[in-house]
Amino acid sequence: MENQQAELLKSWVQVPKQSDFTIYNLPFGIFRNKRLSARVGIAIGDKIVDLSALQEEGFLQDIKLEEGVFLQDSLNPFIALGKSTTRKVRERVQQLLNENNPDLKDHQSRGRIMVGLKEAEMMIPIKIGDCTAFENPSDPLVASYLGSSSTSGCFVPFESQRKVSTIISSGTPFHRPKGQISTLDKASYEFGASRQLDFELELAYVVGKSSKLGDSISAADAEDYIFGILLFNDWTARDIQGQSPFLFSKSSKSFASSISYWVVTLDALEPFRTSLPGQEGDLIPYLQTKRDDGFDIRLEAYLKPEKGTENLLCQTNSRHAYWSAAQLLAQQTVNGSNIELGDLVASGTVSNPDEGHYSSMAELLNVGRITTEDGGNREFVQDGDTVSVRGYCEKGGIRVGFGEVVTKVLPSK
Amino acid sequence: MENQQAELLKSWVQVPKQSDFTIYNLPFGIFRNKRLSARVGIAIGDKIVDLSALQEEGFLQDIKLEEGVFLQDSLNPFIALGKSTTRKVRERVQQLLNENNPDLKDHQSRGRIMVGLKEAEMMIPIKIGDCTAFENPSDPLVASYLGSSSTSGCFVPFESQRKVSTIISSGTPFHRPKGQISTLDKASYEFGASRQLDFELELAYVVGKSSKLGDSISAADAEDYIFGILLFNDWTARDIQGQSPFLFSKSSKSFASSISYWVVTLDALEPFRTSLPGQEGDLIPYLQTKRDDGFDIRLEAYLKPEKGTENLLCQTNSRHAYWSAAQLLAQQTVNGSNIELGDLVASGTVSNPDEGHYSSMAELLNVGRITTEDGGNREFVQDGDTVSVRGYCEKGGIRVGFGEVVTKVLPSK
Repeated sequence: MENQQAELLKSWVQVPKQSDFTIYNLPFGIFRNKRLSARVGIAIGDKIVDLSALQEEGFLQDIKLEEGVFLQDSLNPFIALGKSTTRKVRERVQQLLNENNPDLKDHQSRGRIMVGLKEAEMMIPIKIGDCTAFENPSDPLVASYLGSSSTSGCFVPFESQRKVSTIISSGTPFHRPKGQISTLDKASYEFGASRQLDFELELAYVVGKSSKLGDSISAADAEDYIFGILLFNDWTARDIQGQSPFLFSKSSKSFASSISYWVVTLDALEPFRTSLPGQEGDLIPYLQTKRDDGFDIRLEAYLKPEKGTENLLCQTNSRHAYWSAAQLLAQQTVNGSNIELGDLVASGTVSNPDEGHYSSMAELLNVGRITTEDGGNREFVQDGDTVSVRGYCEKGGIRVGFGEVVTKVLPSK
Repeated sequence: MENQQAELLKSWVQVPKQSDFTIYNLPFGIFRNKRLSARVGIAIGDKIVDLSALQEEGFLQDIKLEEGVFLQDSLNPFIALGKSTTRKVRERVQQLLNENNPDLKDHQSRGRIMVGLKEAEMMIPIKIGDCTAFENPSDPLVASYLGSSSTSGCFVPFESQRKVSTIISSGTPFHRPKGQISTLDKASYEFGASRQLDFELELAYVVGKSSKLGDSISAADAEDYIFGILLFNDWTARDIQGQSPFLFSKSSKSFASSISYWVVTLDALEPFRTSLPGQEGDLIPYLQTKRDDGFDIRLEAYLKPEKGTENLLCQTNSRHAYWSAAQLLAQQTVNGSNIELGDLVASGTVSNPDEGHYSSMAELLNVGRITTEDGGNREFVQDGDTVSVRGYCEKGGIRVGFGEVVTKVLPSK
């Protein structure tokens, strides 16, 4: 441990303790401000490296890049350059930010290139094509199907599509959904605003490479198609027809899903690999992986009432995700469906009841574990509440974090 | 009837008998050819009116249109002009094509403006954002839920999302999907190519106007948001986990959906309005409409084996669709979900078992009504088969048709 500490990289940029955006992370995002049009940036501490300015000042000359590739309102054109190029850009920035490298630190245009995070307006980073969501097999209904299925066939991930137009970025509020909701005695339904609005703490994998219609991608090859990872809050109205993940309408989900701003690359997550539950036991061949495809990401959800302080709701970890990103892409393409650069793949909730980890209020309520300070009787998310989802990896003094997804719930319109 | 016949509009363009593209229709599509880049056209008989050329030659001067609005690879920018403008364009073309109007007929550039349908390469007409599909309540499983639901709440449409990247246009083949399929004795599952590949004959409504996140659109207002209608073949692998519309994975659907090329406007369908089953009885207020929102569209599916002739599989009618387009948009937005220009809304199958009308092989098989010539024992769609879906309205000598969606099934890769 002492030795590891000694070898840690440091940046000349001040990186506050507990910052998600260390020199080991360097996630990509899209920002603009009053002076600057939308562009690609890399976060470090409280700063953003303006990659467009960095390119203009000649710092990326040894990497073949077209002019204007960073002057975009989504990461898609940059991601389209391919991992060999995007990796070179991130590694070059890592060199330039190293405390021992004076090139950018002492450059006359440093002030132009390094933008304050507080002065930046962050934007939704990806132009999303499709968003495919998967179900967590620890859900009771899923589990019961799993039970019957496992005797007659292999267990595979269950997919459905999310509505893309209602995917919002951190900081965007939404109005409480309406619909046919269960009456309080659960005996029937009535029309009204949801009384059981819930979060679901998940990860979203960002597809970085397109496949062809008719082709299947094996789990062993699938990571080539994943550029990075975001935080995903898959809002759910438990009382709008369909409490189960399969049954009934997706109108219990389609009103909003929230994503974070910074795409953390798989390269940055490399030190945090772990195996997942869905990698053990008998697996249908196309889902078999040759390595640990899961990641050890600590995930937390917080709730701040309109007039009150922020309370920790839950702590969990993405190592409880049943399936890996690679397995979900393999499942999605096994039937010949293509995937496209900019697609998102949502992991499903990452709870582990055995260890007391939950990632939605429904699950927390099941075990009487709502931990907000303002009353043990609190149920679900109320108007005016702000839910923040955070995630980070930490190991041997290295921290790689995702920032947060902050979402305020407004009353029904 | 005699009187009606006498008043019928005629065009100086030769319109073959049984042509879908009469002067009453004038649907919009996107085409290109060896000489011409992608652009907006209107179909009439065996010709396409090149709207870009029509604009350049000054025929649309009285309508305020930006230069290049028709030089696009999707209809979206044109549709974004709004119905008051798109309607003017269609009506102007209807005037110009009238047999009594010499303006275009005798114009020196007529040859440039009128392009042969056979010389055109048709393209997918819409840049699709989201595709929301609804379930047909006559499906046994849906019906059983309807039974239990109707005692405890209002019956409402059930929605799910379709994968957008796998929506293909007429003429695009796809490979038979693979997955975990039911064994022949249905006792368990095995991995392989689907043996029960089926079509589903549906309509897709094209959203022509965006709404805001949090807003709901009532069924009474919803037609303002619909630009027109396409044919939709919602391919389904019955034996890939999940034979029901709700249960299990959407991998039984996500490999391919096929759409037709020409968007028929609601204006063209006005004479063919009809009431629908879902407009009768007690209805939750937001689904109530003030007019007949259904359309009397005759729908047919044909199957042509690799070596064989085309056989009629089924004839049905969109008046058997349970819900109207307006009701489906209202349902989709009741929870505050927005809709965006370019979204598609799929109607669900339009079968009516009472009258012996079916719109999928699964339903035809249920009643032993597979009508292909090459054997009553034929089951589902085979490799090399081409399924064609056609649709048209006909009344009082007026025909307004959709053309067709032609899809060939290739073997699994």
